[in-house]
Amino acid sequence: MAQLQAFCGPIIHALSPSKLEIISSGAIVVDSSGRIQLLLRDTDPTTNLLTTITAALPAPPPTSPITIHQLRPGRFLIPGFVDTHNHAPQWEQRGLGQGMHILDWLEKITFRNEARFADPAHARRAYASCIDGFLRQGVTMASYYGSLHGEATNILADLCLEKGQRAFVGKCNMSRGSPGYYRDASVKESLDVTERCIEYVRGIDPEGRLVKYVLTPRFAISCDDEVLKGLGGIARRNPDLPIQTHFNEAEQEMQATRELFPQFANEVDLYAHFRLLGKRSILAHCCYVSEYEMVRLKELGCGVAHCPASNMTVGGGFMAAPVREFMRRGIKVGLGTDSGGGYSSSMLDAMRLAIVASNAREVMSGGKDGGLSISEVFYLATLGGAEVCCLGDKIGNFEVGKAFDAIVVGTLGEDQGVMTVVGEEDGLSTVFEKFVMTGDDRNIIQVYVQGRRVKG
Amino acid sequence: MAQLQAFCGPIIHALSPSKLEIISSGAIVVDSSGRIQLLLRDTDPTTNLLTTITAALPAPPPTSPITIHQLRPGRFLIPGFVDTHNHAPQWEQRGLGQGMHILDWLEKITFRNEARFADPAHARRAYASCIDGFLRQGVTMASYYGSLHGEATNILADLCLEKGQRAFVGKCNMSRGSPGYYRDASVKESLDVTERCIEYVRGIDPEGRLVKYVLTPRFAISCDDEVLKGLGGIARRNPDLPIQTHFNEAEQEMQATRELFPQFANEVDLYAHFRLLGKRSILAHCCYVSEYEMVRLKELGCGVAHCPASNMTVGGGFMAAPVREFMRRGIKVGLGTDSGGGYSSSMLDAMRLAIVASNAREVMSGGKDGGLSISEVFYLATLGGAEVCCLGDKIGNFEVGKAFDAIVVGTLGEDQGVMTVVGEEDGLSTVFEKFVMTGDDRNIIQVYVQGRRVKG
Repeated sequence: MAQLQAFCGPIIHALSPSKLEIISSGAIVVDSSGRIQLLLRDTDPTTNLLTTITAALPAPPPTSPITIHQLRPGRFLIPGFVDTHNHAPQWEQRGLGQGMHILDWLEKITFRNEARFADPAHARRAYASCIDGFLRQGVTMASYYGSLHGEATNILADLCLEKGQRAFVGKCNMSRGSPGYYRDASVKESLDVTERCIEYVRGIDPEGRLVKYVLTPRFAISCDDEVLKGLGGIARRNPDLPIQTHFNEAEQEMQATRELFPQFANEVDLYAHFRLLGKRSILAHCCYVSEYEMVRLKELGCGVAHCPASNMTVGGGFMAAPVREFMRRGIKVGLGTDSGGGYSSSMLDAMRLAIVASNAREVMSGGKDGGLSISEVFYLATLGGAEVCCLGDKIGNFEVGKAFDAIVVGTLGEDQGVMTVVGEEDGLSTVFEKFVMTGDDRNIIQVYVQGRRVKG
Repeated sequence: MAQLQAFCGPIIHALSPSKLEIISSGAIVVDSSGRIQLLLRDTDPTTNLLTTITAALPAPPPTSPITIHQLRPGRFLIPGFVDTHNHAPQWEQRGLGQGMHILDWLEKITFRNEARFADPAHARRAYASCIDGFLRQGVTMASYYGSLHGEATNILADLCLEKGQRAFVGKCNMSRGSPGYYRDASVKESLDVTERCIEYVRGIDPEGRLVKYVLTPRFAISCDDEVLKGLGGIARRNPDLPIQTHFNEAEQEMQATRELFPQFANEVDLYAHFRLLGKRSILAHCCYVSEYEMVRLKELGCGVAHCPASNMTVGGGFMAAPVREFMRRGIKVGLGTDSGGGYSSSMLDAMRLAIVASNAREVMSGGKDGGLSISEVFYLATLGGAEVCCLGDKIGNFEVGKAFDAIVVGTLGEDQGVMTVVGEEDGLSTVFEKFVMTGDDRNIIQVYVQGRRVKG
């Protein structure tokens, strides 16, 4: 990327939960570092684009030629998807364990599978497949839980960097509550491996341009007090690191947590005590949140990774997190595939299932929490997720200064998949709705992360 | 098909809601009429298959050679999917109108779209796309609602026959309640067009081998008493014809029905009065069913087309039909995509969403109605649907004597799509679960209807 690139065509992105911007003819100019230098909202397709762009660029004029990417008919640009909750080692177990409750599903399916990542060759093969699979589906940023193994987690970080996916990667801290064959050897080992992984990831991407380590206490059930305390200390000493954990996911899990930590009335108090809650905390699920916890989550600035696929299938019945309530209170929310607890690795499915879950919530709340619209779930899948990951200033939409993390969506002819766009009739907003509700990775023609093409 | 064909490899089909048969190495022999002549459940892959099959065939020996189709690694056979509720003219509007209640969605999106099928050229193009789209996704049998137009409905029947899809096709009877531009001109016209379509479909497929007319009062709201009465008469005079309508779909719809027909306490009494309920009735949705109606539906032998995608999105909030209760009582149930009220045209999505809806029902019933398993939703998508359509003796699984309506599923290498089968490790039942939960039409390699290959 020795020069400027300009992407010209229709552009759709979210400016806020309630504001979807649909630009029928625009242009995005990206500099050699993958940063958006210019967003033109109203280009005239009949004039010379190069002239228009050059005139709009700040002085001095560019020293090298601008590469123009003119989108074909039926194509449009959207921001890349942000998957705020994803277990990389579970990529190959998606769909398994339907009907199981969370702790049984962990014991019978998941721990056995994750234990295999002790083998670096297995990790390399499976993680490469995972990252390829998500990039292909337009996930330009993922917050990954790894297995408990340090080496496999470093491999995951290496592969994200190599393949060009923006990612948080964290080794799961889990010193108890799981079978002996899949448990950190000791509290010390759990924390030492964590420190070494942090150092490793800093080594391969010193500025955290693409990949960052994320502190990952799996959940309180799997962590001795000393592990939580140690991670809280690491968090304090490393204010740049994000933190992720599972939070109020299922009744079975909440009950087990209360039994292990009788001194805490709820999970907010528990994690806050260990200094793991703050602006950089990504809390997966949050299906059951009391009024007290709502207030505290807002005060603390935590973000919620809403994972409708897993919440409505594996894990313990059917749960519909109070997403509308989070949004009403200004608590940050994004979407997660939760692959493989979530059966689908598609953020498009996550959006559709977020609509389904919100409709259930509408009924369960007696109409108080209205269902989510297509614009709203699209916001959650892009800018909302970016904010949950504290990357709202860097990705999530096409504001000038952000990184060019983008998807070229195709809907006509060979791009069509099972979508049915009626080219001569459907307007851009109709095509967009059809894409969100009926598209799949075949409609995701090209994917860019930080200006680098990673698919197509 | 001048000879016998034998399909050899792994076979999976439902024998009942609770019995999934998984044959790791079997063979299905299909005669020249597309009928299953033999099902071998335990073939030895190391011996000569032709010898085994020939020995198992009833005397006299076949006069012409048997064509052996040996499935490649990672492939297996399942019965074709039966979509019990599907609006063919809505194929191109899938996904639109999220958040709208049923009557608004009809008025603002659907009627305008369906009205265009007055133009035979439009109907031919759109219906060809629809049938191709469903065959590609493994729907070997669909019960289609057409538009209100006789000519377009005949075109739909022609195209199903030509493309080889098993189908019921019916013109919508709708003499009131919709805008003037999309309404049967009169009661007489509504019934006359129906009679002519019945005759037309009998003309092109006299034995109803693939295509049959289905009486299709859209719903009571759209039918004058005289239309319902007239259709009841046609049903009585034509005991071979199936009947379909929408039934207790949404509160808004039920309320409007009660206002139009104050003489009936519920929809069972209403449709039964007009002699439209019986063994051959396919009732879409049935989201709200009282104890009285449950008893009556069972007595009358009606079948239910459960459509989770539309029930949980478009139509009026979130509804989860009492599928477990239907099954417990022995009321026939199958699945419908309800495309385009349902955003997805995939029966795989219908299965997944049936699991989601059943999990919601489990919560709403206080645990009384347990969630559905993968085996159960697979039953609903195949044999259950066949029984709803009164075709349980002809399709739905691979019993000897039934038609060979089948899908060759592929899961490895170029067949893989976004599935992740670990070839050397995953057993057949694991691969099957992964297919149901994570597969798509890319894993549907070949599709057969009545022994004829219609995809691949």
